[in-house]
Amino acid sequence: MSPSKNLDSSSNPERGLKFVQETLHSAITMSKTDIIDEVLNDFSQGYFNLSHENRRELLLVLAREYDVSRVQLRELIQQYLSLDIPSSEKAQSSDHDVQGLLSAFYRTERNLRHALQPKYEILFERLNTHPGGLKFLTILRDDLLSMLQEENSAPLRALDSYLKEKLVTWLSPAALELHQITWDDPASLLEKIVAYEAVHPISNLIDLKRRLGVGRRCFGYLHPAIPGEPLIFIEVALLKDIAQTIQEVLWDNPPTPESQATCALFYSISSTQPGLAGINLGKFLIKRVVDLVKRDMPHVSTFATLSPIPGYMQWLLAKLASQRKLADADTVDEPHSSERTSSSTFRENILQPEEETEILESSRGHTSGGNGMDVMWNLLSSTNYEWTSFPKLMSVLQRPLLRLCARYLLQEKKRGKALDAVANFHLQNGAMVERLNWMADRSDKGICQSGGIMVNYVYRLDKIEENAQSYLSEGRIQASCDLQRYVEKKQ
Amino acid sequence: MSPSKNLDSSSNPERGLKFVQETLHSAITMSKTDIIDEVLNDFSQGYFNLSHENRRELLLVLAREYDVSRVQLRELIQQYLSLDIPSSEKAQSSDHDVQGLLSAFYRTERNLRHALQPKYEILFERLNTHPGGLKFLTILRDDLLSMLQEENSAPLRALDSYLKEKLVTWLSPAALELHQITWDDPASLLEKIVAYEAVHPISNLIDLKRRLGVGRRCFGYLHPAIPGEPLIFIEVALLKDIAQTIQEVLWDNPPTPESQATCALFYSISSTQPGLAGINLGKFLIKRVVDLVKRDMPHVSTFATLSPIPGYMQWLLAKLASQRKLADADTVDEPHSSERTSSSTFRENILQPEEETEILESSRGHTSGGNGMDVMWNLLSSTNYEWTSFPKLMSVLQRPLLRLCARYLLQEKKRGKALDAVANFHLQNGAMVERLNWMADRSDKGICQSGGIMVNYVYRLDKIEENAQSYLSEGRIQASCDLQRYVEKKQ
Repeated sequence: MSPSKNLDSSSNPERGLKFVQETLHSAITMSKTDIIDEVLNDFSQGYFNLSHENRRELLLVLAREYDVSRVQLRELIQQYLSLDIPSSEKAQSSDHDVQGLLSAFYRTERNLRHALQPKYEILFERLNTHPGGLKFLTILRDDLLSMLQEENSAPLRALDSYLKEKLVTWLSPAALELHQITWDDPASLLEKIVAYEAVHPISNLIDLKRRLGVGRRCFGYLHPAIPGEPLIFIEVALLKDIAQTIQEVLWDNPPTPESQATCALFYSISSTQPGLAGINLGKFLIKRVVDLVKRDMPHVSTFATLSPIPGYMQWLLAKLASQRKLADADTVDEPHSSERTSSSTFRENILQPEEETEILESSRGHTSGGNGMDVMWNLLSSTNYEWTSFPKLMSVLQRPLLRLCARYLLQEKKRGKALDAVANFHLQNGAMVERLNWMADRSDKGICQSGGIMVNYVYRLDKIEENAQSYLSEGRIQASCDLQRYVEKKQ
Repeated sequence: MSPSKNLDSSSNPERGLKFVQETLHSAITMSKTDIIDEVLNDFSQGYFNLSHENRRELLLVLAREYDVSRVQLRELIQQYLSLDIPSSEKAQSSDHDVQGLLSAFYRTERNLRHALQPKYEILFERLNTHPGGLKFLTILRDDLLSMLQEENSAPLRALDSYLKEKLVTWLSPAALELHQITWDDPASLLEKIVAYEAVHPISNLIDLKRRLGVGRRCFGYLHPAIPGEPLIFIEVALLKDIAQTIQEVLWDNPPTPESQATCALFYSISSTQPGLAGINLGKFLIKRVVDLVKRDMPHVSTFATLSPIPGYMQWLLAKLASQRKLADADTVDEPHSSERTSSSTFRENILQPEEETEILESSRGHTSGGNGMDVMWNLLSSTNYEWTSFPKLMSVLQRPLLRLCARYLLQEKKRGKALDAVANFHLQNGAMVERLNWMADRSDKGICQSGGIMVNYVYRLDKIEENAQSYLSEGRIQASCDLQRYVEKKQ
């Protein structure tokens, strides 16, 4: 069967997989001057037609059968071990024979380096230089990532880790072009912005036009091999002060005359390629955008975000739920008071006494519960967010919700990093946590994620590198005094 | 001494080198969130200020002291050798422990891969993502190449080879942008075209404007990190037929109405970065330009070049000189006729009998010589190219010069590749040798390089891959019947 013959794989999935396997083999083994483009097209087209299960099968074949050639590698290792490590005197010698021996040593080392590259490196390299190939590789990695969520396969994990390293190299900031996205851009590109805006969905053309219009900016990182589709983009509003609600950013038109703006507010940053997960393009994008805005608008001196806190409510509800469980266990244990320590070690009333009292008092008629945490859990987990319709409930919840949010952002960590993904993103880029904003996002999504709270991160240009370093090396999170005060109070 | 402090290195070269060495050390060892940009700026600025000798010193330090850590590598190798190579059954197992062992194996292999990377990899990677860094690296490689011409230093050669591999990755066609250069481009870019045009120098603005005007095209490959400066560019003329002289390409204005053009003639291709020597960007550029022209002008069906033959005259004069020497030796040897075989094995009259006669007859009054080759050498090596002023001399030289040129292009090789650099370039890209053109370039450079002869290479789209492959694997050179006929005749 000729690998370049197109088959309708959908009608016959078995034959389809076999065909794609054959094109895969050709794509790796053909000499580079062969009609490789056709084979790569066949391969990627064939891959797209495969079912999820067959894609998995194919990727396992790729990971296992086009891996490092370990027999050859061991031979080279033995050859390498038999050579003396060159001394630094030798390296400085101008003797012809000495340089010859040295050259042989370096050559063996280079061969070793090449022997450690899996054969699938060839496929990745060829696809990278093939039209549409880089995009294809991001789709392939997206598949890999979803497979790795389903199963722990070491070969697939090794394949993913190798592909990720290659993508990091190819998508180095040096290879990316910063593009200001405007209303003059092709509709095909603007359509992508609408489709991928992940933070504050774009509802219609007027909304999009507003985000590209006066008082606002939108910048994207484009790769020459994936034209017309930014890999990541950021939306900026030019304001007088750091915004407190997303409503004023999204709906005031224009938010402020551009000449009076002193703050560039990053209100949305969205990646478009799930296959690039774990590759931080945003960090460089923010740096470049800051430089650009500073250059074009010297009167802008504050660079801040108005960011969602996507993990807050989930964390808080889990916390409340586990405390309720511990409280229940204690109630059952009550008679044997000597044994209470086992669970009470982890018990904690995350509410302060006055908060507890207020919540219990105000919630009468809305919900019931044995204690403040019970009531709070009931209120916050009600599906239609009833609490947001009653000013009194909102007012008693405001203080504990803000205070616990500060704790969540500044103190809750996972492997030394902020638990909240967006916080982790900005902190590793060198930002600090500046201010919490009550009812800053009243959309259903905003209430559900974070009780409507949003946070401002601030990028202080003279502190970016220092902050990033102390966060990455010691997990230290820089925060404003206001934020600090929330968590310094005895909880 | 703070590495970020700027010193005037020109006044004190020793201190300058020491300073640059310190910034080099910081650039490699600082954690990545440090104020690395400043250090990289200091390093590159400091490097520019160093003398050639100090640059060499610094690059030797880089090559030797920031190399692979071989002690660590040997430890890892021992650890790796102690692990079993995973069998393919194991790789397919879904057992949790088996996958855990496998993961450990892959991890060690990945560590080994990383341990084989020299420390200077960090410098290269950091410079690549640093503004101006990629350009700096091409300059550094240019320096390396010129040092390697002066001395055979194994560490410098290993450094060069590693840097070249990195540059190949970063300059993959996927990262390059094809840009049509027009009169609307910034003067700063057009100035580069004038400066770097290596084949047919651009004499003035009118000349440049003509090359970007109606009936012509100019395309460049740009890298986002080196803005405003194409790494390589190609000049194209749209013609009715494949041009026979560079005069008609360069000076007719326009050469032909665009709507009547059926031939896209590549008449110049120039690299701008000597530090990218050995990295073939032209191959991809030609492919992309062919695709683009085909799409925009479907009536263009012939893609050809009008190319110089830069090594022809040098080869021919050397050939003539060595034959004269052998002839002299024979004359001396004449009395002992039995010993003549030693030199006569290599003796060859590269002229055919009738050419010999004609040359001897026509050259009387211009030059003297014992035989045709003597005379030919004298005529061709005269500094003011006197032979081109006499139609009679030109007419007798035409036949042997064309015939020997065909031999030079089709048969003279070095390591299986065409001896002529331009021929090798187009042949490896998949072109064929189509036609020799007498007096196609009458400029001094043209006469000096190739006796005024130019050659058309033709890219037949359906044969490009096949030609490239048979050339690269077997050294086979495809040529038209006319060309073949020259070399088939008994010489």
